[in-house]
Amino acid sequence: MSARDANEQPEQPWNRRRLRSTNERLLLDRLRAGGPASRAQLARKTGLSKPTVSSALAALEEAGLVHEVGTHAPERGRVAVLYAPDPAAGHALGIDIGRGWLRVALADLDGAVVARADVRNRARSSGAMADLVVTTARQVVANSGLGTDEVAHAVVGTPGVYDEKQRRVRYAMHLPGWGRAGLFDRMREMLGIPLEVHNDANLAALGEYTYGVGAGSRLFAYIMIGTGLGMGVVSEGRLFTGAHGGAGEIGFLPWPGQQKPETLEDAVSGVAVVEAARHFGMTGQLTAKAVFDAAREGHPAAVRAVRLEGERIAHTVAAAAAVLDPDLVVLGGGVGHSIDLLLPPVRETLRTLTPLRPRIVPGRLGEDAVLLGAVATALGTARDVVFDRRSAL
Amino acid sequence: MSARDANEQPEQPWNRRRLRSTNERLLLDRLRAGGPASRAQLARKTGLSKPTVSSALAALEEAGLVHEVGTHAPERGRVAVLYAPDPAAGHALGIDIGRGWLRVALADLDGAVVARADVRNRARSSGAMADLVVTTARQVVANSGLGTDEVAHAVVGTPGVYDEKQRRVRYAMHLPGWGRAGLFDRMREMLGIPLEVHNDANLAALGEYTYGVGAGSRLFAYIMIGTGLGMGVVSEGRLFTGAHGGAGEIGFLPWPGQQKPETLEDAVSGVAVVEAARHFGMTGQLTAKAVFDAAREGHPAAVRAVRLEGERIAHTVAAAAAVLDPDLVVLGGGVGHSIDLLLPPVRETLRTLTPLRPRIVPGRLGEDAVLLGAVATALGTARDVVFDRRSAL
Repeated sequence: MSARDANEQPEQPWNRRRLRSTNERLLLDRLRAGGPASRAQLARKTGLSKPTVSSALAALEEAGLVHEVGTHAPERGRVAVLYAPDPAAGHALGIDIGRGWLRVALADLDGAVVARADVRNRARSSGAMADLVVTTARQVVANSGLGTDEVAHAVVGTPGVYDEKQRRVRYAMHLPGWGRAGLFDRMREMLGIPLEVHNDANLAALGEYTYGVGAGSRLFAYIMIGTGLGMGVVSEGRLFTGAHGGAGEIGFLPWPGQQKPETLEDAVSGVAVVEAARHFGMTGQLTAKAVFDAAREGHPAAVRAVRLEGERIAHTVAAAAAVLDPDLVVLGGGVGHSIDLLLPPVRETLRTLTPLRPRIVPGRLGEDAVLLGAVATALGTARDVVFDRRSAL
Repeated sequence: MSARDANEQPEQPWNRRRLRSTNERLLLDRLRAGGPASRAQLARKTGLSKPTVSSALAALEEAGLVHEVGTHAPERGRVAVLYAPDPAAGHALGIDIGRGWLRVALADLDGAVVARADVRNRARSSGAMADLVVTTARQVVANSGLGTDEVAHAVVGTPGVYDEKQRRVRYAMHLPGWGRAGLFDRMREMLGIPLEVHNDANLAALGEYTYGVGAGSRLFAYIMIGTGLGMGVVSEGRLFTGAHGGAGEIGFLPWPGQQKPETLEDAVSGVAVVEAARHFGMTGQLTAKAVFDAAREGHPAAVRAVRLEGERIAHTVAAAAAVLDPDLVVLGGGVGHSIDLLLPPVRETLRTLTPLRPRIVPGRLGEDAVLLGAVATALGTARDVVFDRRSAL
């Protein structure tokens, strides 16, 4: 036959061993989703026979993946033991590298955060930043009383797009030196934990999907407005990342009134709000927060700056609506606490721009969205890794 | 336990019967993807045992899903019978409803077109149009010598977005009356074939993915420029449709230089090219084709009109690039034969707009993209339906 044959792996047939492992995984997932249950309840729910459930549960308990959590006394019949996944079977690490703050959280397999650190990011170089990440992560793991070998997986959120081939981050405008090749490989080695890198807006979107306002949405876009401008897209529960992980780089959207080479990111970010306020006549030491606070008090220049910000955000929403057809747009990021001021001009401008007007709401997780998204993503992999590792023993 | 229980279907366990059906499907898919093969070759490729392969093939042959297509004489060993999927086991119908033309094609399960009709669309009402679709489809099926019961599935491409709940098409600006509720239900009933409705640009994207330039792309966007403006997005081989099927409605993108209430669709469609040419001084009975032809001859007003068209298309490409991160953008639709004139201004404008510049190429299927996409989509379902129906016997 053809030359392809040599490269092809034979597909795995469904044999007894794989069948057993599939049933164990089915029961574990069911316990994770449905809460503690007895043998009889699991048999009813899964359609597996009681002997199959019993032996699979015994194997799961033996592997440390499942433990007894109590008993259930039905009106009729015998008292039954209730089982649940053992949350201590493994752990997952989430890391949010922002320009202002570095946040690290360690969670057990139930997703409960068992240790956390929030550190001001004062690193002056990308190397110092990488060191700070490693030191802080180690500390968090140590504080929980665990060894790094008990952390199955870590996920890092960063501005920009991680390029797997070149081993570096692209488009991270606001973190100088952050595009250096090998930076994350160094963190991975020093930490001794498998480590994945994701765009921060993507993780924030997953965070809001898993723990926040995005739950149940078929397709939602999380627009992160802060130091920069980014968007994360979650489609049927999965991150939509595009061909090279660059989906949602809406800082590069062309926009009406564009003055080259200004990007939409420059026009919408926190810095832009300050610049606009200054342009409209505000003076003094300004921050984005100060401008929003002044707008809340009715300061005319601040009100105009916030209005302009809202109009520009409306353009990103209009573009996302036409291209993606989201059922929900979540606004979050550094301006999170001021979304109430931005929503009216966003909605008003949108009405003049397009008939496609998705629901727009503020995020629920605030500054924790990226971190919790990183934890949720790391958990997904950690659960698989822990199952495979322990059930193989 | 909780109230959820009553609504939950027990998950199906992996029993012998399901295992057998899974193995049969595995072999059928392998034959479809890899070409004719003998029992021994299939056993090697799938990892299934030879007796399992033999009995599964016998069942498939019995069900009319697989047939013998010849023999294979290896250097050593016995002559072996070669098997392949039987293309006549079922058929699929593709329908492209365009403003200018109605196209219908019937394909066997191998995807070979066995009958086809292209009819000028002179219908004056949506009812007449629906009748024309039914009559033409019936004729195509009859011409192939088949009965409608041998057509497992049909897919229709139309401008606009089909709303499953309201049973009607939205946003089909260029087909008057086309938004009427129940129009497609009527076609389905009259035809007596299960019928799915999809956006035409989406189907064209699938067509170019399956048979054209999109093959192998991780994420590509097909921009359809003709009577209207639309985009279809294929992500990892699957259509990306958004929350309500409206993804790619780029006619509604806001764009620089917008004069309300003009949409980008109005500005980019074939009609807009004619209007621009007139604006720049061309006279006479103009069509988009005439303007492109004149531009090819160097007519200054036509050249300017085509250039403006290219600049505007660049804005849709830039928006798609920022939101979706495609590795390929395909330009097609009614202006397909003039893409060579449009590409230079598109690429030039893109350089001034954004650092995100995906590869841009003309489509390969021309006017057949929607029709072939409809056939490919119908085939996907038809293969499943035919397998389930025949293997259940």
